[in-house]
Amino acid sequence: MSPRVCLLSGGVGGSKLAWGLYQVMPRTDLTIIANTGDDIDMFGLRVCPDLDILLYTLTGRVDQDKGWGIRGETFRALERVRALGGTGWFNLGDVDIGLHLARRERLLAGDALGRIMAAVAAADGLACRLLPMSDDPVTTRVQTPQGELHLQEYLIRERAEPRVQGLRFAGIEAARPAPGVLEALAEAELILFAPSNPLISIGPILAVPGVREAIAGSAARRIGVCPLVGGASLKGPTDRMLADLGHEVSPAGVARLYAGLLDEYVVDTQDAAAQASVEALGMRCLAWPTVMHDDATKMALARALLARAPGAAA
Amino acid sequence: MSPRVCLLSGGVGGSKLAWGLYQVMPRTDLTIIANTGDDIDMFGLRVCPDLDILLYTLTGRVDQDKGWGIRGETFRALERVRALGGTGWFNLGDVDIGLHLARRERLLAGDALGRIMAAVAAADGLACRLLPMSDDPVTTRVQTPQGELHLQEYLIRERAEPRVQGLRFAGIEAARPAPGVLEALAEAELILFAPSNPLISIGPILAVPGVREAIAGSAARRIGVCPLVGGASLKGPTDRMLADLGHEVSPAGVARLYAGLLDEYVVDTQDAAAQASVEALGMRCLAWPTVMHDDATKMALARALLARAPGAAA
Repeated sequence: MSPRVCLLSGGVGGSKLAWGLYQVMPRTDLTIIANTGDDIDMFGLRVCPDLDILLYTLTGRVDQDKGWGIRGETFRALERVRALGGTGWFNLGDVDIGLHLARRERLLAGDALGRIMAAVAAADGLACRLLPMSDDPVTTRVQTPQGELHLQEYLIRERAEPRVQGLRFAGIEAARPAPGVLEALAEAELILFAPSNPLISIGPILAVPGVREAIAGSAARRIGVCPLVGGASLKGPTDRMLADLGHEVSPAGVARLYAGLLDEYVVDTQDAAAQASVEALGMRCLAWPTVMHDDATKMALARALLARAPGAAA
Repeated sequence: MSPRVCLLSGGVGGSKLAWGLYQVMPRTDLTIIANTGDDIDMFGLRVCPDLDILLYTLTGRVDQDKGWGIRGETFRALERVRALGGTGWFNLGDVDIGLHLARRERLLAGDALGRIMAAVAAADGLACRLLPMSDDPVTTRVQTPQGELHLQEYLIRERAEPRVQGLRFAGIEAARPAPGVLEALAEAELILFAPSNPLISIGPILAVPGVREAIAGSAARRIGVCPLVGGASLKGPTDRMLADLGHEVSPAGVARLYAGLLDEYVVDTQDAAAQASVEALGMRCLAWPTVMHDDATKMALARALLARAPGAAA
């Protein structure tokens, strides 16, 4: 018997665990709640990087080498934008743009993001549920010495180089969990936090009013996977961002952000020494191989997590 | 000595004469005023068919076989839109979309259409001036038995099949001529009406407040080229649209729409018999070969028109 699973996820890192789960469990028992704080409107398009990476990854379209984007993608539209002096730092492929166009069309028609993504997922044959954290626009803004930037400006245009002085999730106070989010959390027997950036990927999801409370009060087994391995993030600026904002750059530093929300925290085997400091936060610490460098390691981590669900066969 | 020329033009038909003029005269002496009544917002993009066909034609990008779109174009984004159930009847190529994205980005930043197109034209190396009739949105709406349609819905989605019961140019009362339009008309020694649809291509330009008056009061030689040859339009629904709206489907029927605005009207040699009925409208009628089926015929018609300018060497 497989547990109902709810995964909180950002993009590239989270999509690896999502892919592993998608392979090893009944797909209809899996709900993924994706961060939408890094969504951005560009050229009138609505770009939803985390939702789309998850969609592309699970439906087998993703460019495995890059970890994002579509395999065999072309960039003719954006090359033309650049030739005309338009914004060129955010790379959008032609097929990817097709999704952004279709999404914008339905948003303009008044449809909600979650409903739109459900229709996209159905068209693409996605067998699990993929939910935005909220239908309401939330935008992660990064305070830096050069002013406040959209998260994507900070990450992509500025290559995550500016010092991070603060973060805010614009619109979060008015954001409601998307339809299905609180239901999925309530029904889940296993709630997982993907090894995504705790500040800008998992953080915005938890900040949606009602989500933190739903997880804190849940009877599910709640497990997080640490995005730091050997004191550094595998990909992206998680480590520097933690340091810039005064957090400890360590498994315990991340786990502290989830205190009261998790029963168990998975650190990499090479960070087994962090066990005591994590457990001091009131959660059990498990030291497992967490680096998902190929299909087998993604599935192995997924299976190990599923085995922690209440009532799971060992 | 070459005259300063101002050409009023729609898309496919007009772009042929525009191309001819562009080859045979000093390009900086040519200003093209393009219809924007068939512009349409789709998927959040701003599509400007006539401006873009003119741009693509003059800069050598156009797909010669189709008469619109870009040579070697791909349609990956729109195929994706269709696969997702989005609107698929208006074919947008990937490179074409790049222009629409760049244009939308600058419109969202508050830039005016004319300024944007000037920047696009400069980036593409266009050597003549290409002006929208207005920076203000004007939308040609077609009344049909199935309700009022956007012109593109009528033309493309409905393949110009519904009976046309009426036309209106939504927004025209508030539209001002784009910067440069009245100046170009005032400076022109030769004002040309391309062989475009008089109702939906030249008509909206003339309906922009101030334009008709500027042409009526101009001292330039003003010449129109008839879009009907042998009693039918070469391309598009001009003939049926004229008939549906109670106009005579003949050179004189079109010329009547331009009475008081033109000094001369060019009909095709095979319509030489129309001469008397056209001249009864108060304009000289010239019977020339007007079918622009190749580069030579486009340039020949352009040269013949230029030769009618005041002071032109014969």
